[in-house]
Amino acid sequence: MLERNLVWHHCTISREERWRLVGTHGCTVWFTGLPASGKSTLASTLESVLIENGHRAYRLDGDNIRHGLNSDLRFSAADRAENIRRISEVARLFADSGCVALTAFISPYVADRDRCRALHQRDGLPFLEVFLDTPHAVCEMRDPKGMYKKARAGQLKGFTGVDDPYEPPPHPELVLNTGILDVTTCIEACLDLLRRHQVIA
Amino acid sequence: MLERNLVWHHCTISREERWRLVGTHGCTVWFTGLPASGKSTLASTLESVLIENGHRAYRLDGDNIRHGLNSDLRFSAADRAENIRRISEVARLFADSGCVALTAFISPYVADRDRCRALHQRDGLPFLEVFLDTPHAVCEMRDPKGMYKKARAGQLKGFTGVDDPYEPPPHPELVLNTGILDVTTCIEACLDLLRRHQVIA
Repeated sequence: MLERNLVWHHCTISREERWRLVGTHGCTVWFTGLPASGKSTLASTLESVLIENGHRAYRLDGDNIRHGLNSDLRFSAADRAENIRRISEVARLFADSGCVALTAFISPYVADRDRCRALHQRDGLPFLEVFLDTPHAVCEMRDPKGMYKKARAGQLKGFTGVDDPYEPPPHPELVLNTGILDVTTCIEACLDLLRRHQVIA
Repeated sequence: MLERNLVWHHCTISREERWRLVGTHGCTVWFTGLPASGKSTLASTLESVLIENGHRAYRLDGDNIRHGLNSDLRFSAADRAENIRRISEVARLFADSGCVALTAFISPYVADRDRCRALHQRDGLPFLEVFLDTPHAVCEMRDPKGMYKKARAGQLKGFTGVDDPYEPPPHPELVLNTGILDVTTCIEACLDLLRRHQVIA
């Protein structure tokens, strides 16, 4: 097992070889949409379904990024852009490793998301943007963390969908309205997207 | 396949379940040592050996970090600490995903490495520090990129091992002198370390 790895020039595994051995073609599935549009629910569920079916997947969301890698960032325009830039770079690393990186962030600006897309394209990695086009009224009614309520009461400034804009993607790979479609239907659509892009068989 | 994932409260996969399905217990193997002490060689080779044997592994090193995630950082003391902080956070995410994260950075300061260790310990993830205790003279003789030469000529300032200190780890999990031991022996020692910590069977 070790003999073939003795020579330094032979011991760096190529991405293709890694992906073949790992059994998953890496990619990034970028969920974007208003607060409470269903990003975390879909990313979590898709992660479970992929892993339970023998694929590699990992979710990046507020839970594991905000208090860790990006704990030094606040809410200025520059910090928001840097937040998405770093998440993009980490997703790219996971994709390169042969993992389906699933990101669940509002990521309200087209420019930030397009930088992430360009980063992946330059590196030969699929970037699949999934726009959760759930109506604003539905998201605000759900309001699981009471954030819309706080923003309406003026206790939260710069809240996307209340006093900060959300810019829909002009050309997303998939559009889902979770106000109409149930989770199963949405996940089937995501799996179909991954199949069409040869990420899974 | 989807039925069991319909309920939101059931669809977030636990780390234990993920690791079981993925077949690898996540951890971080942190290689540290002087420039040209053999960090990248060992990290690359160990990555290949692990993947070829059905485990998940991914290497973080200058190639995929310096021009990406940390492209905004320079060489001030604050930036150097931030460099290691971000790498620590990304390694933690890979470990959490059920991957053996292999980092290959000089990481000359005890305080920075200990912060990374504490981060992993707080999160219940193994942190295995591998100190490449290769004699300074051997590293400087190898000098594959001519960096020692440049530093000696005064063309590089703050170069570890020439005009910036390297602080050896007081309690590393493994010490390897690549001036004496060949790659196979070093890799066997790393695999043995991973077995002792139940990362691989």
